[in-house]
Amino acid sequence: MPDEVTGLFGGVFNRGGVATGDMAWLQALLDAEAGLARALERAGLAPTGSGEAVTKAAVAADFSATEVAEVAQACELTGNPVPGLARVLTRRVPPFAASAVHKGATSQDIMDTAAMLLARQAIDATRRDLARAAASAARLAAGHRGTLMIGRTLLQQAVPVTFGLVAAGWLAGLDSALQGLNTIRAERLTVQLGGAAGTLASLAPSGPLVVPLLAAELGLATPPLPWHTERLRVIDVAVAMARVTAALGKIARDVTLLAQTEVGEASEGAGDNSKRLPSGGAPRRGGSSAMPNKNNPVASVAILGCSRQVPGLLATLVASAEQELQRAAGAWHAEWQPFSDILRLGGSAAAWGAELLDGLGIDPSRMAANLAATGGLPLAERVTGLLAESLGVAMAHDLVASAAAKAVSSGLPLRDVLLASAEAERAGITAEQVDAALDPAGYLGASDEFIDAALAVHERQAGK
Amino acid sequence: MPDEVTGLFGGVFNRGGVATGDMAWLQALLDAEAGLARALERAGLAPTGSGEAVTKAAVAADFSATEVAEVAQACELTGNPVPGLARVLTRRVPPFAASAVHKGATSQDIMDTAAMLLARQAIDATRRDLARAAASAARLAAGHRGTLMIGRTLLQQAVPVTFGLVAAGWLAGLDSALQGLNTIRAERLTVQLGGAAGTLASLAPSGPLVVPLLAAELGLATPPLPWHTERLRVIDVAVAMARVTAALGKIARDVTLLAQTEVGEASEGAGDNSKRLPSGGAPRRGGSSAMPNKNNPVASVAILGCSRQVPGLLATLVASAEQELQRAAGAWHAEWQPFSDILRLGGSAAAWGAELLDGLGIDPSRMAANLAATGGLPLAERVTGLLAESLGVAMAHDLVASAAAKAVSSGLPLRDVLLASAEAERAGITAEQVDAALDPAGYLGASDEFIDAALAVHERQAGK
Amino acid sequence: MPDEVTGLFGGVFNRGGVATGDMAWLQALLDAEAGLARALERAGLAPTGSGEAVTKAAVAADFSATEVAEVAQACELTGNPVPGLARVLTRRVPPFAASAVHKGATSQDIMDTAAMLLARQAIDATRRDLARAAASAARLAAGHRGTLMIGRTLLQQAVPVTFGLVAAGWLAGLDSALQGLNTIRAERLTVQLGGAAGTLASLAPSGPLVVPLLAAELGLATPPLPWHTERLRVIDVAVAMARVTAALGKIARDVTLLAQTEVGEASEGAGDNSKRLPSGGAPRRGGSSAMPNKNNPVASVAILGCSRQVPGLLATLVASAEQELQRAAGAWHAEWQPFSDILRLGGSAAAWGAELLDGLGIDPSRMAANLAATGGLPLAERVTGLLAESLGVAMAHDLVASAAAKAVSSGLPLRDVLLASAEAERAGITAEQVDAALDPAGYLGASDEFIDAALAVHERQAGK
Amino acid sequence: MPDEVTGLFGGVFNRGGVATGDMAWLQALLDAEAGLARALERAGLAPTGSGEAVTKAAVAADFSATEVAEVAQACELTGNPVPGLARVLTRRVPPFAASAVHKGATSQDIMDTAAMLLARQAIDATRRDLARAAASAARLAAGHRGTLMIGRTLLQQAVPVTFGLVAAGWLAGLDSALQGLNTIRAERLTVQLGGAAGTLASLAPSGPLVVPLLAAELGLATPPLPWHTERLRVIDVAVAMARVTAALGKIARDVTLLAQTEVGEASEGAGDNSKRLPSGGAPRRGGSSAMPNKNNPVASVAILGCSRQVPGLLATLVASAEQELQRAAGAWHAEWQPFSDILRLGGSAAAWGAELLDGLGIDPSRMAANLAATGGLPLAERVTGLLAESLGVAMAHDLVASAAAKAVSSGLPLRDVLLASAEAERAGITAEQVDAALDPAGYLGASDEFIDAALAVHERQAGK
Repeated sequence: MPDEVTGLFGGVFNRGGVATGDMAWLQALLDAEAGLARALERAGLAPTGSGEAVTKAAVAADFSATEVAEVAQACELTGNPVPGLARVLTRRVPPFAASAVHKGATSQDIMDTAAMLLARQAIDATRRDLARAAASAARLAAGHRGTLMIGRTLLQQAVPVTFGLVAAGWLAGLDSALQGLNTIRAERLTVQLGGAAGTLASLAPSGPLVVPLLAAELGLATPPLPWHTERLRVIDVAVAMARVTAALGKIARDVTLLAQTEVGEASEGAGDNSKRLPSGGAPRRGGSSAMPNKNNPVASVAILGCSRQVPGLLATLVASAEQELQRAAGAWHAEWQPFSDILRLGGSAAAWGAELLDGLGIDPSRMAANLAATGGLPLAERVTGLLAESLGVAMAHDLVASAAAKAVSSGLPLRDVLLASAEAERAGITAEQVDAALDPAGYLGASDEFIDAALAVHERQAGK
Repeated sequence: MPDEVTGLFGGVFNRGGVATGDMAWLQALLDAEAGLARALERAGLAPTGSGEAVTKAAVAADFSATEVAEVAQACELTGNPVPGLARVLTRRVPPFAASAVHKGATSQDIMDTAAMLLARQAIDATRRDLARAAASAARLAAGHRGTLMIGRTLLQQAVPVTFGLVAAGWLAGLDSALQGLNTIRAERLTVQLGGAAGTLASLAPSGPLVVPLLAAELGLATPPLPWHTERLRVIDVAVAMARVTAALGKIARDVTLLAQTEVGEASEGAGDNSKRLPSGGAPRRGGSSAMPNKNNPVASVAILGCSRQVPGLLATLVASAEQELQRAAGAWHAEWQPFSDILRLGGSAAAWGAELLDGLGIDPSRMAANLAATGGLPLAERVTGLLAESLGVAMAHDLVASAAAKAVSSGLPLRDVLLASAEAERAGITAEQVDAALDPAGYLGASDEFIDAALAVHERQAGK
Repeated sequence: MPDEVTGLFGGVFNRGGVATGDMAWLQALLDAEAGLARALERAGLAPTGSGEAVTKAAVAADFSATEVAEVAQACELTGNPVPGLARVLTRRVPPFAASAVHKGATSQDIMDTAAMLLARQAIDATRRDLARAAASAARLAAGHRGTLMIGRTLLQQAVPVTFGLVAAGWLAGLDSALQGLNTIRAERLTVQLGGAAGTLASLAPSGPLVVPLLAAELGLATPPLPWHTERLRVIDVAVAMARVTAALGKIARDVTLLAQTEVGEASEGAGDNSKRLPSGGAPRRGGSSAMPNKNNPVASVAILGCSRQVPGLLATLVASAEQELQRAAGAWHAEWQPFSDILRLGGSAAAWGAELLDGLGIDPSRMAANLAATGGLPLAERVTGLLAESLGVAMAHDLVASAAAKAVSSGLPLRDVLLASAEAERAGITAEQVDAALDPAGYLGASDEFIDAALAVHERQAGK
Repeated sequence: MPDEVTGLFGGVFNRGGVATGDMAWLQALLDAEAGLARALERAGLAPTGSGEAVTKAAVAADFSATEVAEVAQACELTGNPVPGLARVLTRRVPPFAASAVHKGATSQDIMDTAAMLLARQAIDATRRDLARAAASAARLAAGHRGTLMIGRTLLQQAVPVTFGLVAAGWLAGLDSALQGLNTIRAERLTVQLGGAAGTLASLAPSGPLVVPLLAAELGLATPPLPWHTERLRVIDVAVAMARVTAALGKIARDVTLLAQTEVGEASEGAGDNSKRLPSGGAPRRGGSSAMPNKNNPVASVAILGCSRQVPGLLATLVASAEQELQRAAGAWHAEWQPFSDILRLGGSAAAWGAELLDGLGIDPSRMAANLAATGGLPLAERVTGLLAESLGVAMAHDLVASAAAKAVSSGLPLRDVLLASAEAERAGITAEQVDAALDPAGYLGASDEFIDAALAVHERQAGK
């Protein structure tokens, strides 16, 4: 369970304001305990005023270093920090309220509920940044629907696309990831309260009343029954975050490729050279320690640095679902750190993503130059389609392949090689037909419709 | 991409009828091609009758060994089997229909669409078996709501529960997993059709018409735009299966623990000694090659053998979402095998789970004996609750802890140690109070309410 | 990159003294920079005295909060903390030594070298604790070679073993893991120094001299060539730690199973009730917040809590080996946190393991009772062996299986059922033969030889 | 456990001749049983001639479909195929030899030993292909030590390197991976023989004699004691393969980047246009179904398709090391498929790697053009070094950074901008100095020494 990660590497891996460090956990645990005390009071199981008294005492920032250390030390003895926390908290409340502290709960109730509180905070921060990123992607999709570029498959030039269509594809991923967060936020964040073995026996007969009261106090949902060893909620939160980093990782990968020196179609931080230290000095964003000429795609690299940590963490959480009987011996404990990490990395990636798409520079002239660089080869498919009408698909494919090979080896334009071929002559293909076929703007297919469809989904989802 | 896995290990890892081997893939690829031909014909882009002609030719079982080999050989040359398949299929159709084969599509269109067809088949088989398993769990939850047993946390005896509550917890996981499958089935299984770089340029201007026609032909949904490098659908299918194995893995782990010789509270294959080879001879289900006395929990072990392979496969698929530009160089290819495996393992686990819960034997007398074995210690929490009213939580906890320790070391019942303590006397605790506190049937808390809640969710979800 | 993790959960996940938090990283980065300055001076590339001057300035504890914040802020701008660190460090040295700071190095040189310094510290701490654990396992193996217990396969009672043999199996894993650490420590911890793209061009022509000097200064090995994008060393360190947690996870799993209330053959913290808070009050080690009777196997649970996080982290590191060209865009960054985590978790698991095996309590009388509980069934194999001589393996297997089944259903001892069978009579099996076959002490096979072999490996490896 | 995977996708994922399908497993299991029978005979525990008799019967190819089906069916009943196999094999031997079949062994003994036999075959095939790949890399490193190209960090142009140095880095990874295979091959492939619970009780007192005899018969090593639940050997084999795919994945990633249309510095299949179907027709290697102009880097893509599946599989195997007591309930079963897969994928990647490096085309003229494309910017570091002598590192870095920025924005060469700057004039920098600094051939640092070092390691390791 990392501390706030605000230190050396936090600028990369702890952006976006998702707090999962020690103090965030401590406060979340205290919030769960305080919510429980208030719920108990409302259910008539704790003295009047005890809920408020516990709540007042349950402020992590008020804890002395000694108190925090006592909680931590207890963690070593009991395997989790809650027993120590309950003891310290009990000491901090007035005597009349002591019986309201941790009453009916087991450690896992407090840990699991706190985890859901942390998840909510992380999900909300991530939703905010993802919405910003999606808005930028929508803007790029709409604004660049006419910006021609070469499509690349297996990193080879293929056929023309528009940058608007590329951005529409990004947008679709972002919107889907955002929708996933919305669903989890609304449906899967519940309190956990089951007591020692999930029966709430020590609160009988009022246990079933306390659970929804606790949920109401904390703004979480009420589960049908305790889920201490039914861990699909944990998986669902983690998956929602993994979908975020998956969608962003694809975008970041694309940007690093488009920003390559030899490609030069995109660049980070357009119009924003002000990303410098407050002192005004170097290093600037994207600067290299050894190469002053570099303009590194730092945001994209940071997103990939986040997104690539997530699959392994998700695997740990999925594997941890195999929890024994009424409390797991290890599998539950193995959740805490990867759960925190995945929240933090998802939030960081989203924050970087919002910034990346906000400041993404697009260079239509480099796009046009790259598209033209291979003398018509990317339009070979279109020519194939033309010839296929008379020659059939397979023969047309072979003919154009051989013409393309000849164009490559001879350095002649595809146009000339094709028109000189016996097959083209036999099929009656004219120069006008070939020239039309080789105009990329005429070979964009349904790009506009697809952009419109992605934008329509986005607007519907954004409630516009 | 494993072949049918009907061989040596298929009995364990390929139950439930999920087909993802070579012939299943071949047929799914052919189904996608045939659906495309019919859609093209309906859109007026292919000759009348060509859809039917291609469909007739697109039967994997009719392929000769030479034809299959040609497809496989082409896979080595092109990195996927579709180009070879398209070539063979073209040869198999009457000349008039040749132009309808693979027209407008790229290899990935066919592969991705075929993957969705395989997913649908796998999800349907898994839903069927999961529904069976959930029905059994519901039956166990309702039937055993009065069956007392000891709850165990960190594998130590804790406080009493009922087996009905345990089964209700299992049911909640199964129903949640089933709901996940239903959602994916309804919302996320779409065709993929984008052509060389996602523009459908070679079908212009009719591309956008063809996509929904293809979806209608194949019974899949229409995506807003091509998703060749937006892979959240792949992740969503895999996650839905991972939720299945997560829910089942928890159950299987519990059964292996409850079936331990020293615990003896559950056993597999109750009332079903007939699981033998057709020859009538041994080995029987659960037999060991070296120990004739063994009755191994084979179904549970098989579920765990499946479920534990899933997190790593899911990690691969999540990592594979980082797909470059208009077609990934490797990440897409890395999906095929884990996607197939996760479908197969999810389906196998569900089939084993249905059988496991169907035939699960429960031994209430062993449960009662285990509950009584430690002389009241599991009720210590209740006694603590009693004392807490007068002593406060912390002090009561310590007192009962010391009494419990003394009971363990001296061999005396907890009851006697407690009643002999000065603190109990001071607090005016009577023998009647202690005896009542030590009756496990009186300490089940909200078990019944939780069972009812799980059953209510189940019935609502099952549409009853 | 978590901070020191000394907080709430550090007692569980940061034991053993492995430091990988912010301050540890900061110091390791400074050590690398200081070592470089000294090496440069020795190579004649930096002014006399500059090595010492930089070393004096390179003390993390002396950094002001503002300086640390500047480093962290720079991390956001450049994607790693080194450029900011080099700038701050340069300011901290006397002017004459400024040119010795970071000269010739790129950020990754410093990060990778620092990672190897952290790895060395972690490996040494882990070796120390693992050696303690192995010594305890050896003591248990030797001391319990005559302690009979039932072997359990698939969690079912099988045939007799001794606890000494169980401990010998644990020892074999620990010794193998320790040997792995030793090998990595000796062979794979090298400096990294390549400059901007791995040529050391800015130190030409002296670059190749500086590398071994840097290695000598830091006590690391010299690689044949820079390994900035050849990451097998990173994998090798991680694997060595994963082998540690794999060996310990098996032991911890066994202990949790043997410590089950119903089994009771092992317990943690034997003879050590003093694991309490300094205040002398509860909670004690293994105490539960809700159940005062619990004696939880905290060390084993903590080990499993560590070990189960490792496979996913290792997967991330293995996947990160795919690093582009002369510096990876993301894959390198994705290494930092899992690398730190895996060092810390390996070290924590080893510390817990040393403590676990040190204080492991064994209860031979419970072992004997469990062995006797099923009336001879675990010896069925031996009886099968006896009968196989006359009946053949398969038939003997079937006969004993049916006798065992009858014994189970009738409650009669296996002995009586067998002697009453027609087949036994036909084969001339006598009561004496059956009684001898049913004596577990006579059915231990090569247990002693195997214990001796494990101890011999241990002593050879420990240099005794 | 996939069948031979020779089908649709085998050309990609089952190259290199590693057999892990059903028939390979069946034969390996039979080899283990036959080796055991021979060992038993040599130990005097089985009739004379029985070893040979069992060996003759233990030929998978001779099994009828019915017999294979019986084995497979038994797998469903017992959770693994060995009991059924032992039964069928017993029927196939002459009566006198029946007692030699499976005597003393448990299913896991046969499975684990068979897994080691499969591993040996896979490792040997992989070593052969990896040695080929390494030889090619060495040839490229030596032959291209003078081939200048631009080094790229974070996918941005950085400073010059040579292609020889790039290949030397690849070589270092390949040699390290090969050495890992050699070590595992020599030290970690052992038989497993422990009987029902690891004591070899049913072979007493001769058990310890049989183990080395079995090892001798099978050409495997003898372990000190049974390792049925000490799984570091399984991990070690898997790691050795993961190191192979890690080393190859880095190379394949580099090739896909260098082969990009816009980069064009490398290409697959140079001088080998003959990779076509036997029929002579298309598709050719690297052909696209939709784009006849494509020349896809199929080998690199296939390597990445393999390598990216490995981290998740390795995670499963590492997680599986947590095996309960004397035989795991699920964790062992979960090993079979990922173990097979990782052997197959490692072997396939190595086969592709040998072919890739064998036929890799390098285009020095494109390398030179790309190096020159940015007008001296990649030499900025060198100029910085020059200026640092007079201005200090930080100021020089800032000055060159601003000159580079001006060069980029103005389109002027860096040379002219620098010489026009006040600072350069103040520092007395001459045009000659700048021109020399801007010659890439003069800025290769220790590239040659590093190439030599990698070649020296290679030759030493290859025994030259």
